[in-house]
Amino acid sequence: MKQLNSNQCFGGQQQQFEHDSQVLNCTMRFSIFMPPQASEGKVPVLYWLSGLTCTDENFVQKAGAQRMAAELGIAIVAPDTSPRGDEVADDEAYDLGKGAGFYLNATQEPWAKHYQMYDYIAYELPTLIEAHFPVTDKRAISGHSMGGHGALTIGLRNAPRFKSISAFSPIVSPLHCPWGHKALTAYLGDDQALWVKYDAVELMKKIKGNEAYLPPIKVDQGLADNFLQEQLKPQLLENAANDVNYPFEINLRDGYDHSYFFIASFIDEHLKFHAQYLK
Amino acid sequence: MKQLNSNQCFGGQQQQFEHDSQVLNCTMRFSIFMPPQASEGKVPVLYWLSGLTCTDENFVQKAGAQRMAAELGIAIVAPDTSPRGDEVADDEAYDLGKGAGFYLNATQEPWAKHYQMYDYIAYELPTLIEAHFPVTDKRAISGHSMGGHGALTIGLRNAPRFKSISAFSPIVSPLHCPWGHKALTAYLGDDQALWVKYDAVELMKKIKGNEAYLPPIKVDQGLADNFLQEQLKPQLLENAANDVNYPFEINLRDGYDHSYFFIASFIDEHLKFHAQYLK
Repeated sequence: MKQLNSNQCFGGQQQQFEHDSQVLNCTMRFSIFMPPQASEGKVPVLYWLSGLTCTDENFVQKAGAQRMAAELGIAIVAPDTSPRGDEVADDEAYDLGKGAGFYLNATQEPWAKHYQMYDYIAYELPTLIEAHFPVTDKRAISGHSMGGHGALTIGLRNAPRFKSISAFSPIVSPLHCPWGHKALTAYLGDDQALWVKYDAVELMKKIKGNEAYLPPIKVDQGLADNFLQEQLKPQLLENAANDVNYPFEINLRDGYDHSYFFIASFIDEHLKFHAQYLK
Repeated sequence: MKQLNSNQCFGGQQQQFEHDSQVLNCTMRFSIFMPPQASEGKVPVLYWLSGLTCTDENFVQKAGAQRMAAELGIAIVAPDTSPRGDEVADDEAYDLGKGAGFYLNATQEPWAKHYQMYDYIAYELPTLIEAHFPVTDKRAISGHSMGGHGALTIGLRNAPRFKSISAFSPIVSPLHCPWGHKALTAYLGDDQALWVKYDAVELMKKIKGNEAYLPPIKVDQGLADNFLQEQLKPQLLENAANDVNYPFEINLRDGYDHSYFFIASFIDEHLKFHAQYLK
């Protein structure tokens, strides 16, 4: 693991690292914010998954999360959104290939060799982080848009590995939106029965209520978001959660769009939400 | 004036506009954050001047200033750092030409036609803002690095037009650093007697103490800043301010560098500082 950058920020350290991922078969970058509390003991970790076209840097530069993370004593790990490198398959479109890994394990060519983001986020990256940084095994997961989809699906499938889940403007059901159909067809093939494990609404429908631990979910959605009606459809997840009495809250925010200005406006509330479950 | 972008943020609006500048002879962009209080009455304005290579967008995306500006009810105007456009003279180096206007009025060719950033920031832009937005004529000015130089020199020369001045990691004396020598030689010519009106230390030395209003100055400087010793030299300004009993405070911050992570960490304190004088 190689350190690329380190900047002091709110008394903690905002850092960027590069490492060889066995799961993804390529070199990956991630960013990590270590709060000042980490110099005196282990701290819990929030994993932040970004959306289409992003790298590990967007959230770090634009969300303004470090202030509250430093106050609460939470580390934040921001991975990249896909495998990277010249040898990694890509597509000209912004919503497939590099920058659009959809946090799943691809089975189809030419994607399968590198596009294993589900395993990377759920297992390989936390193992790496916990081996190299002063962090506890208390984890939370959050994300935006495609990253909201990643947070919901990885969080729901891995309880109690993640104590709490949140999302801004998430793609809640790839089965029910154009982004999802395009990406999952490419990565997983035409059989939609194989898509359901990467669909938060379908995962929610399978909740029995007798699970040992259900990670609470908090969603924020802007009502001026251009993608709301066609791609995001948070009511599908809200309905499914209500049907199974899942600990779920959604906040619909008048006037807010799909940008990081929306995330910045409410990230403090998400961090406080996660802090309750990371103690 | 043409609106390019508008994003709701912390209950206010982060917007970007384009306009034809008479002073600069080109089309310019600026960003403005209007806090939620502006929907009920006029608000004061902080002008933020960015550093070398920046546009109007860096501060808006990276400083995380909107949260506190929304709380305090202060608008923030972030102009570009130089004239722009294909017809504007430029240089291959990052520290001369576009992105490096140094907030002065150039007298030398090929710069003089467009590089009149001093007049643009001190007069044309505030006049435009006050004609088109619900703002008062209470103004403050702040900036980073080259923009700190701009804030200090424009603020000191235009009291009481600006009620308070602050700077992060400012170039306090172009007369005493390589960046300054290069830029001022190009823009103003070799006669250093003509440089002094763009040198905060020289301006400070001329304070008599019987001025009607001295805008208080607050400076933050990171001690891990790579440019500290060769380019910034804040002690020159501190000494000059002490010599004339100027209302001046400087905070030296251990471990912080020249980046926006430093600005983000202390921007709230700068906004609270300005708020005292903008009431």
